Amino acid sequence: MQTRTLTLYELGGPPIRGGPPRHYSVFSWRTRLALAHKGLAFESVAVKVTDKAAIAFSGQTRVPILRDGDAVVFDSFRIAEHLEDAYPGQPTLFGGDTGRALARLFNAWADRQLIPVLLPGLMLQNTRRLDSDDAAHLRAQLQRATGRTLEELDAARPEALAAFLRLLDPVRVALRAGPYLSGAAPRYADHVLFSLFQWARVTTAAPLVPAEDALSAWFDRLLDAYAGLGRSEPAAAEAP
Amino acid sequence: MQTRTLTLYELGGPPIRGGPPRHYSVFSWRTRLALAHKGLAFESVAVKVTDKAAIAFSGQTRVPILRDGDAVVFDSFRIAEHLEDAYPGQPTLFGGDTGRALARLFNAWADRQLIPVLLPGLMLQNTRRLDSDDAAHLRAQLQRATGRTLEELDAARPEALAAFLRLLDPVRVALRAGPYLSGAAPRYADHVLFSLFQWARVTTAAPLVPAEDALSAWFDRLLDAYAGLGRSEPAAAEAP
Repeated sequence: MQTRTLTLYELGGPPIRGGPPRHYSVFSWRTRLALAHKGLAFESVAVKVTDKAAIAFSGQTRVPILRDGDAVVFDSFRIAEHLEDAYPGQPTLFGGDTGRALARLFNAWADRQLIPVLLPGLMLQNTRRLDSDDAAHLRAQLQRATGRTLEELDAARPEALAAFLRLLDPVRVALRAGPYLSGAAPRYADHVLFSLFQWARVTTAAPLVPAEDALSAWFDRLLDAYAGLGRSEPAAAEAP
Repeated sequence: MQTRTLTLYELGGPPIRGGPPRHYSVFSWRTRLALAHKGLAFESVAVKVTDKAAIAFSGQTRVPILRDGDAVVFDSFRIAEHLEDAYPGQPTLFGGDTGRALARLFNAWADRQLIPVLLPGLMLQNTRRLDSDDAAHLRAQLQRATGRTLEELDAARPEALAAFLRLLDPVRVALRAGPYLSGAAPRYADHVLFSLFQWARVTTAAPLVPAEDALSAWFDRLLDAYAGLGRSEPAAAEAP
């Protein structure tokens, strides 16, 4: 059972009409679902990309960061491992050692082969939802990494999204065998891919996959999971 | 314990100097390692690509096919699932339901995103080791699939191999955490990737990865695993 106070430092975007901060970070969504999966309540502290002072206590420069009692854990995969090890009596995130190792591999696949294809084409839309200093920071960062402006990357969006959908082909094979990537129930590998879909959902009004794609029904299931945690975040289509 | 006779129908290539048939099939190597992992002895029946009559009993046109008592199982992943379910007391191939689901996803990734990059550039060399009718069959099949001749594909080999190594980037991340993709011990996901490396090893004398690549040490470990089953197959470098 939960005996400690959990605090999640995560990227926060400007709220809509006085609501709570918006959650735009891919990696933050992995941790949010992992915490919900473990049935753990947590306090969220919204941090701006450009506000390094807010997380100076951690010695880190990037969120998400989880404070769990005296422990300060950073990197979304390490946070998932911490939760699995610190709360073994709660529902498992990995389903054992092999599942943990393969979730780590899947996590690396998503970070290194999916994100570089998906994010650049949507980043212009994403920055429009952020504070201007965060937007300027991300614009400069992506331009350094790709050698192209956000506007150029945005113009190449159709090809990028088509390539992203092709890359997901192996995931569709997995979904023929069960409702989730991890089998009969969602586990951390599902949270990882969900984080990309959710980032797109809060960034752009256009659906990432057509309704007849098996990934569309999978994403809907995960939006409804955990008492609708994912669905409770306003979509770009609802809050343009 | 093993009480039934297991027979593996698998692609066999012409032997060297009166030795046993050579094993060139990617998918056959997955099943060979899975059987060894389960500690199961089996009889191998070498089948040529062009000899459909030899496997007509199964209703299938492609090997590997496993006959286990009265059961006839085809498709390498389904064979692995059969072995896991029929021999639960032997070492696990999946490490539980989550591990099975993620191994299925990894298997699909290897088949759909690794094989189409790796195999075409090495197929000319591969066909030189096969009987002429099998070689002609594979040549025609790949030319239909790619629209290019084996010679053209062979000329593009350097770029294809470089792309293959880049695609393996997430696997290297996994290998930072443990000696095998599946963690502390090899499991079916390791067998899947091994099958590609072993196919290259028996096909071409050039090493697939440089010695300093973490995948080189990983492949060596798997060649030595299961009493050296993989190592016992002559490499192209030894039998040109």
